[in-house]
Amino acid sequence: MFTPATADQRFVLDHIVGIADLAATERFAAASDDVVDAVLEGVGQLAAGEWAPLLRAGDTVGAKWTPEGVVMPDGFVKAYHDYVEGGWGTIGVPEEFGGQGLPFAIQTAVLDTLGGANMGFALAPTLTVGAIEALAHHGSPEQQALYLPHLATGEWTGTMNLTEPQAGSDVGALRSTATPLGDGKWSIKGTKIYISFGDHDMAPNIVHLVLARTPGAPAGTKGISLFLVPKYRLAEDGTPGDFNDVRVVSIEHKMGLHASPTCVLSFGDNDDCIGELIGGEFGGIRAMFTMMNNARLNVGLQGVQVAEAATQAAVAYALDRVQSPRAGSPSKESVKIVEHPDVRRMLLRMKAQTQAARALVYYAAAQVDRAALGQAGAQDRLEILTPLAKAHGTDIGNEVASFGIQVHGGMGYVEETGAAQFFRDARITPIYEGTNGIQAADLVGRKLSMANGGVFAQLIADMRAEAQDAGLIGLIDACDEIGRGMAGLDADDKLAASYPFLTMLSVATCGWLMERSGRIATGDDAFSAMKRAACAFYVAQIVPEALGLKAAATAKADVLYSVPAEAFAA
Amino acid sequence: MFTPATADQRFVLDHIVGIADLAATERFAAASDDVVDAVLEGVGQLAAGEWAPLLRAGDTVGAKWTPEGVVMPDGFVKAYHDYVEGGWGTIGVPEEFGGQGLPFAIQTAVLDTLGGANMGFALAPTLTVGAIEALAHHGSPEQQALYLPHLATGEWTGTMNLTEPQAGSDVGALRSTATPLGDGKWSIKGTKIYISFGDHDMAPNIVHLVLARTPGAPAGTKGISLFLVPKYRLAEDGTPGDFNDVRVVSIEHKMGLHASPTCVLSFGDNDDCIGELIGGEFGGIRAMFTMMNNARLNVGLQGVQVAEAATQAAVAYALDRVQSPRAGSPSKESVKIVEHPDVRRMLLRMKAQTQAARALVYYAAAQVDRAALGQAGAQDRLEILTPLAKAHGTDIGNEVASFGIQVHGGMGYVEETGAAQFFRDARITPIYEGTNGIQAADLVGRKLSMANGGVFAQLIADMRAEAQDAGLIGLIDACDEIGRGMAGLDADDKLAASYPFLTMLSVATCGWLMERSGRIATGDDAFSAMKRAACAFYVAQIVPEALGLKAAATAKADVLYSVPAEAFAA
Repeated sequence: MFTPATADQRFVLDHIVGIADLAATERFAAASDDVVDAVLEGVGQLAAGEWAPLLRAGDTVGAKWTPEGVVMPDGFVKAYHDYVEGGWGTIGVPEEFGGQGLPFAIQTAVLDTLGGANMGFALAPTLTVGAIEALAHHGSPEQQALYLPHLATGEWTGTMNLTEPQAGSDVGALRSTATPLGDGKWSIKGTKIYISFGDHDMAPNIVHLVLARTPGAPAGTKGISLFLVPKYRLAEDGTPGDFNDVRVVSIEHKMGLHASPTCVLSFGDNDDCIGELIGGEFGGIRAMFTMMNNARLNVGLQGVQVAEAATQAAVAYALDRVQSPRAGSPSKESVKIVEHPDVRRMLLRMKAQTQAARALVYYAAAQVDRAALGQAGAQDRLEILTPLAKAHGTDIGNEVASFGIQVHGGMGYVEETGAAQFFRDARITPIYEGTNGIQAADLVGRKLSMANGGVFAQLIADMRAEAQDAGLIGLIDACDEIGRGMAGLDADDKLAASYPFLTMLSVATCGWLMERSGRIATGDDAFSAMKRAACAFYVAQIVPEALGLKAAATAKADVLYSVPAEAFAA
Repeated sequence: MFTPATADQRFVLDHIVGIADLAATERFAAASDDVVDAVLEGVGQLAAGEWAPLLRAGDTVGAKWTPEGVVMPDGFVKAYHDYVEGGWGTIGVPEEFGGQGLPFAIQTAVLDTLGGANMGFALAPTLTVGAIEALAHHGSPEQQALYLPHLATGEWTGTMNLTEPQAGSDVGALRSTATPLGDGKWSIKGTKIYISFGDHDMAPNIVHLVLARTPGAPAGTKGISLFLVPKYRLAEDGTPGDFNDVRVVSIEHKMGLHASPTCVLSFGDNDDCIGELIGGEFGGIRAMFTMMNNARLNVGLQGVQVAEAATQAAVAYALDRVQSPRAGSPSKESVKIVEHPDVRRMLLRMKAQTQAARALVYYAAAQVDRAALGQAGAQDRLEILTPLAKAHGTDIGNEVASFGIQVHGGMGYVEETGAAQFFRDARITPIYEGTNGIQAADLVGRKLSMANGGVFAQLIADMRAEAQDAGLIGLIDACDEIGRGMAGLDADDKLAASYPFLTMLSVATCGWLMERSGRIATGDDAFSAMKRAACAFYVAQIVPEALGLKAAATAKADVLYSVPAEAFAA
């Protein structure tokens, strides 16, 4: 049923990422047209052929906790091994660590396809990518040599261990400890919650990256360090050896994403959990941000994945289900529901939102590559785009999944149809890897003020230079005005307006990229026609909607605090 | 945990419904202040004390199919009997049929409270109300005498049987048959799907109202008749007697609302299912609309119910969960998350949307009463408000339930917290009793043109006469302009714009009622302060957002049809 969105991926890589520019550099010379096509096609076959058929079992059977560890549903172990065998994990990993050194944008397309087929499953490689990033940037040469080749292939998987019961969004409140044992070894102790793929039976080892506090460390985020804690310690020959006292206490009973075991992990119950420092002591937050930043793009990408899957399912249903004659038509014959205007409006909106979010996330991913090439402004652009890609990508993933149910009517509410799974799966994405509220706070609190507002101003200038539609220009102008005004606001006012502003800026960015896409897609094939319609719809209908948020994005906090907190219970 | 929203209900009854005006009439003289207070308090006790504690079991255990029929989870039978014993079913039923003859608006408040406590459970009495309405308006005196007293108390429950596999939104496509047996009896045959509370073990009889086709009936909706089909035929003494060959084939495996068994019912498998005509032959659609119209208000009310419950849960969590110091504060102490501006924004929005939707639905309910009193324009006002109440009430129910998860963060995605149940339960409401797309089509296709646009013009005039905020006036003006323009559009263009227009007009109506509420709530108690904040937020932030839909509400259908249907799969 799932068809990889290869045409749109290729379009976005060509016209939004600028893959040809990247391939023209020495570093990314491997990303030739042929290679890109082969990657998109190859991973599409794996995704459609092996991963998509496991979507329902991932939901209905789900990952199961047992005393021996977490067991995946039938078929997952093989499908994962075929992913490893196919070399799909190595796409974006630098060659020096055993990877193919292709652009992050290509890796993004690979994860897009895998997650479109099976979002919960694709979280396993997604998390491994974060672990690779952290090790590649902050690990010692020894750590890199021992761990990266196995992570690069996906033979071993990675996890990120931040959250504790009292430390959710407030990472600085964590209490897990690391006590020096000498010789670079540390004894790790503590309980971590919400650890995605914290345990499973698809890999012979799992590399946990754990935030913990060293003796006498300062309070808050300043005193946090990052530790590498394998499930099995490495033997002399580098293969998994003794169990490292990392126990799966339980897995959460979640509303969705059942293919992804969300673990409570207990480190050092028997005082026998050994970790190594990654980066320096107290360098945990910095390393975490390396790990999380690309993870945030990848979670934004999950919004694209689930939107793509939900759209395909709804389109297939609407092309099949016959109900009622078309209003105003002389024919009294019932028609496929895709012919009814309001159904068609929902479908076109789903297409437009999905394509726009894909453009946004891939565009951000391209900045990772451009930054790696040292291109001016790319790192800055990446940083300002990251909260937009994460929050807006996941917001539209939820919106589109909800439309997916609506198009199915009553059938959409019945689990067997599958539309409900997308809706349930999608709902975690605005929460994890930094809630979308945290993304909005990051945008107005940190990103807008980068280079004294210069990073934001450059984004606005680039959009303004290209935008043609008056409505889009109006939205860009409004974002500019509001964004510049933020500098003069106090923290409460900034934060009160942060989320509506984030949505406005995200839609402006998407509108900019979609308007360009609509100009480029001049072909007379079905994909080009659909792209033009989606872009036209986006600019004409979704962009003006975002302008409707201006009042909220300029509102002050006072109305929020006009009543005491307890009055909310009145 | 659940606290009946008595203060807000009383406020809305006083200032939006105008309950004092109703009580000043002979017909509704019973609705004195004391009685209203006693009703709100009494049903609040039942709801909080007995119905709310069953909320989780309704979800986790759910209604179960057995060969002997559907079995409700433990506790439901008693809780339902206590509802019947308390006389809560009789509130709005005319005295001539054994009811208390209180206004429909009071019955609305009763269902609001019961459904706030346990939305799935409250669907049973909600559906009975529809059956009562159909019988009271279209039943013969004999039918009314035999059935209404038992339905009025809720001792017997009612169902509505419209949908068949090939006949969803297109009711006219149904195939169930009724063959005359003489003596006013008909043999009923056919399969109906999506029958809420089609079977259960809480009542000794169930009264199915079934749409079917008589021999030689014209095609489409014109040839449909409504039949009264009891689960057990009445014996001579009017008590349930022989089984009437209505079999529960299965119940659906739904994403939520598990307390409500959604049945596939098979009528006349053994050619032994006997029904009676309600109203005349081919009068089925008219009777169905009587049954459905108030049902639509009651489904809009379900949006209010789930929004209220989700808001209360989120507020309780936000007043308890401590996380992170407040940004910009000199104190580095972590605070309750209700103190963080973006959390507070979500909570205030939830409060505002919930109160606004309550005002809208109760306002529509008041028109039922005013129409019963023969007040000029009330029936027209009811008809134009019905699609707004149904669609917008359920849309905000879903929005608020989603915010409810977000406020809980990661905990919201874990089923045990309960926030996820509201989100799953809410999702059916934009679908059943006429999808929200159908509501939008009803608005632009039938309601706008009533009295040559006069009904719409009067609503606009009433809003305009009272509105003070410039933004609200702008929205009303925009609705006026767009609504009047609809008359000149062809069916495709009307329908393409119908849903955004419905949202605009709904928000305008809510904004009008909320602005008035804010002016009235001058008290210095916590409820009044919260009401003022919610109203101010609504007018200042939600109203302008709706104005952002103007482009979509004036867009033509051509972009939707600029690609062939198959291109949506490209």
